[in-house]
Amino acid sequence: MAVEQVQHQDILEALLAATGPRGLLTGEDVLARSCDPLRTMPTLAKAIVRPADTKELAAVLALCAGRGQTVVVHGGRTGVSGGAYTGNGDIVISLERMTEIEDICLASQTAVVQAGVTIEALQMAAQDRGLFYPIDLGSKGTATIGGTIATNAGGNRVIRWGMTRQNVLGVEAVLSDGTVVSSMGRLLKNNTGYDLKHLFIGSEGTLGVVTRAVVKLVPLPTSHSVAFVSVASFDNVIELLARARRLPVLSAFEVMWSDFYALMASSSPERRPLDPGQPYYVLIEGLGYNERLDEAMFNDFLEDALERGLLVDAVLATSERQRQDLWRVREGSEVIVREMSPFLAFDVSIEIPRVEAYLAQVRAALQARFPQVRFVTFGHLGDNNIHIGITVGPETGHLEREIEQIVYGALPEFGGAITAEHGIGQFKRIYLDQQKSEGEKEAMRRLRQAMDPERLINPNVMF
Amino acid sequence: MAVEQVQHQDILEALLAATGPRGLLTGEDVLARSCDPLRTMPTLAKAIVRPADTKELAAVLALCAGRGQTVVVHGGRTGVSGGAYTGNGDIVISLERMTEIEDICLASQTAVVQAGVTIEALQMAAQDRGLFYPIDLGSKGTATIGGTIATNAGGNRVIRWGMTRQNVLGVEAVLSDGTVVSSMGRLLKNNTGYDLKHLFIGSEGTLGVVTRAVVKLVPLPTSHSVAFVSVASFDNVIELLARARRLPVLSAFEVMWSDFYALMASSSPERRPLDPGQPYYVLIEGLGYNERLDEAMFNDFLEDALERGLLVDAVLATSERQRQDLWRVREGSEVIVREMSPFLAFDVSIEIPRVEAYLAQVRAALQARFPQVRFVTFGHLGDNNIHIGITVGPETGHLEREIEQIVYGALPEFGGAITAEHGIGQFKRIYLDQQKSEGEKEAMRRLRQAMDPERLINPNVMF
Repeated sequence: MAVEQVQHQDILEALLAATGPRGLLTGEDVLARSCDPLRTMPTLAKAIVRPADTKELAAVLALCAGRGQTVVVHGGRTGVSGGAYTGNGDIVISLERMTEIEDICLASQTAVVQAGVTIEALQMAAQDRGLFYPIDLGSKGTATIGGTIATNAGGNRVIRWGMTRQNVLGVEAVLSDGTVVSSMGRLLKNNTGYDLKHLFIGSEGTLGVVTRAVVKLVPLPTSHSVAFVSVASFDNVIELLARARRLPVLSAFEVMWSDFYALMASSSPERRPLDPGQPYYVLIEGLGYNERLDEAMFNDFLEDALERGLLVDAVLATSERQRQDLWRVREGSEVIVREMSPFLAFDVSIEIPRVEAYLAQVRAALQARFPQVRFVTFGHLGDNNIHIGITVGPETGHLEREIEQIVYGALPEFGGAITAEHGIGQFKRIYLDQQKSEGEKEAMRRLRQAMDPERLINPNVMF
Repeated sequence: MAVEQVQHQDILEALLAATGPRGLLTGEDVLARSCDPLRTMPTLAKAIVRPADTKELAAVLALCAGRGQTVVVHGGRTGVSGGAYTGNGDIVISLERMTEIEDICLASQTAVVQAGVTIEALQMAAQDRGLFYPIDLGSKGTATIGGTIATNAGGNRVIRWGMTRQNVLGVEAVLSDGTVVSSMGRLLKNNTGYDLKHLFIGSEGTLGVVTRAVVKLVPLPTSHSVAFVSVASFDNVIELLARARRLPVLSAFEVMWSDFYALMASSSPERRPLDPGQPYYVLIEGLGYNERLDEAMFNDFLEDALERGLLVDAVLATSERQRQDLWRVREGSEVIVREMSPFLAFDVSIEIPRVEAYLAQVRAALQARFPQVRFVTFGHLGDNNIHIGITVGPETGHLEREIEQIVYGALPEFGGAITAEHGIGQFKRIYLDQQKSEGEKEAMRRLRQAMDPERLINPNVMF
C-alpha cells in the first residue's frame, strides 16, 4: 500500500475506535449524501463521523488534529453558500446523532438542545409547553440548531425577535484541538467574562463545532393578524415601516417589488389579493396574545396609514385560510423557479433609505450589459435584507461571475453587505475581501489563528 | 535623571506630539479625578490622554505599544467594579473629547455616535427625532456609549429591548497595537464574516478601545402604564412573569422582596402604595404607542392575574405623577444607603426557578455566621438579575471578603453568575476562576492573547 493509503486506513481505524461502528460511514454512504440542498452534489470525503455526544466529538477532533486531518462540519445541509461542500481528503463531522431536546424550562422560558435537533422538532416540543422558538425558516424541517447557530440564521420574524444570535443564551462548542468550551448558562444577563457564545454564532464553523445550546423561547402567540397592502412610492414604504414599528406585535414586514408581485399575480387568482400595477406590495404580520385588542391595534394602524395616504389599497385577512393565502403570495419561490430558471439568487443587505438607489444602479448596469435581463425583488425591509432573483436567459449560469460582480460591486457605496443571512460559505469567499476593512480582516485572521491555528475545521469556508 | 524618569519624560513628550496640549493632562489634573463613582479615589497615572479622534487614539496606542506602556481606558467612570482604577505607571486614555453624535437616521432608526457621548445626550438627541435609545441607567447623565458598550450595560428595560449588546449594530475599536477595526455598518442583518462587534462588547476594554458605534433606536413610546402589585408566593411571581411576558408592551418587571419593601414603606407614605406584609412586590411597566389600547391590554392583564389568584393587591397608576411615585419605590437607593450603610451591594444572576432556593441558602449561611445580618433584595427577575444589599453592621467593610465568598460560593450550584450587569472589573477578578469552565478560560486566554498579546490595555481587568 502507498503511504497515503496506510494513513487513510489508520485514521479510519482510529475514528472507528473512538465512535464505534454506528459513528462511522464510508464509501457509498458518504457519496449518497448531497451537500447542496438545491441540486445533487455528492459528498466527497474519507468518511462521515457521527459522534454520539460531545465527549466523542472532542476525541474525534483531537485525533484529527494530531494527524493534521481537515474536517468539514455538516448540520442539516440546507445552507445555500456551499459551507457543507467537501473534498476527497476531508472527514465530515455530522451532528445527526445528537438530537436530544434535553430540557424545556417553563419558568425561565428556555430550552437546552443538542446541535442535531431540527428547528421544527424544537418548535413542536416548545409548542407542547405553550412556548415558541421564533426562528422560522423555510427549511426548518431539516435545518438544525447547530447549523443555524453556526450560520446565525435569520428568516421572516427577525424584525420582532432578531436573528439566531439574539435567541441563543448559551453554547457548547469544541475547538479544533478537542478543547470543549462549555458556556451553557440559561442566564439572559451575565457579564461574567467574555461572552464566548458570540465567537461561535455566525462563524460558520470555522472557530469550533457547536454541540449543544441553550435557547430562549417566547410565549406561543395566540393572535395572528396579516394584511397585504399596495404602496405608490418607496418613501411611503419607509414611512409605513416606521409606523409599523410602533405595533408591538409586529412580526413581519415583507416588501415585494412590482416585478415580484406581477409574477405571483399572474400565476393564480389566489396569489392576486390586490390589483397589480403599483410599484410596491407589503405583507404586514402581527403575532400577539390578546386577540381582541391585537386586532383592534392592527386596524388602528391600517386606518391611520390609509388616512395618511400611505396605502393605495389594503386587504386584511379575516380567517386562518386567508392569512395562509396572503403568506403564499410572499412565499412563491416555486413560481420564481418555474418562470425564471435558470436564475441567480442574491441575499444582500442595504441601508434602508438607499435601497432604491442601489437597485436602480444595479438594474441599469445589468440592463446595459444584458438587455434581456429579468429581476424579481423582495425582502425583509425592516432588517435591510433584500433578495434579488436575476436571470439573463439560458446562459445565466455561465455568466454567474459577471452578474455577481455587478450586484456585489455596487454594495460598498450603499453601505451594503453581500450576504444578510445566507453567509459566506465557500461560494462568496472571493467577495469577502472587498467587503471588509483592513482592520477587520486582521482581527478575523487573529481570531481564526487563535482558535484553529492549522485551519483544520471548514478550511475552505469564509476566508 | 534616573533612567525611569527619562523614559517618563520621553513618553509624555511623544504623547504631547501626538495629541497636542489639549490632549494631555498631567499632575493635579490627573489626581483630581475619581476613578470610583461611589467614593473619592484619585486617579493615579503618568497622564490622561484625550485623543480628538480615532486616528489620534490609534497613534497613541501604537506609541504606547512600542514602549510596552500599559493603558487604562476611562469612559464616564460610573462603573462600580473598579474597571477604571489605575496604577502610578499607567497612562489613562479618556474618550471625553469624542462627543459627537454624527448622525441620526429616521428611515433606518439608527444613530452614529462617538464613544464619549453620554447615554442621556443620545437619548435627548433621539427624542428630538421621535426616537428612543432604550438603554436606561441611573448613571445615564455620565455613563458613555463607549463605556456601556465595553461593559455591555443593562438597566431596567432589558426585558423588552435587551442589554447594550442587543442595541448595537456597529462598532469601531482600536487594538493595543493601534490597528483600527472599523465595523460601522448600520445593517441589522449582516452575515458577511465574523461579527466583530461582539468581540468588543462586554470585554471591558481588554480586547480593544471602542471609539465609535452605530446603535439601534426604537420609536419613542407614547403610552406608559405602571402597576404595583403584591404577591403571596414565589410560584405566583413566576406565573405572573410568564403572564406578563404575553404583554408585547412589557418594559419592566421589577421584583422587590419584603425586606426591600418594608424599608421603603417605612421611609415615607409616598413609598407605601400597598400594605406591607406580603413576601413579594412587583412593579410592572408597559411602554407602547397606542394609549387607549395599551391601557386596555394592561387592564386585561391585571384583571386576569387577579382572577387567577396571582395577586394579593394591585394599584395601577393613573397619572404621570403616580407612575413616577411607583418607580420611586423601586429606585430607593438613597433609603438603602441611609438605613443600611455600611453595606455591600451584589449583582448576581440566577436561574429563575432557583432564585428562592439560592437566596434561602445564602441567607441561612450568613445568619449562621453573622446573626445581626440584614438584607435588601430586589431585581430584574425577567432577566435573572437579583441585586442583594447586605450589612452586618459597622464591620461590614472589613468582612467583605468573607461575605462575598458566601454569596458567590453558592452560585455555581444554582446556575448563577457573580455579575449580571456590573462586570468583573478589578474587584471581582479573583472570583472569575470559579465561574468559568476550563475550556472557557482557555478560549478567553486565547482571545486576549490574539488581540493584546502583551496585555497593555486594562491589564488588571477581568482576568
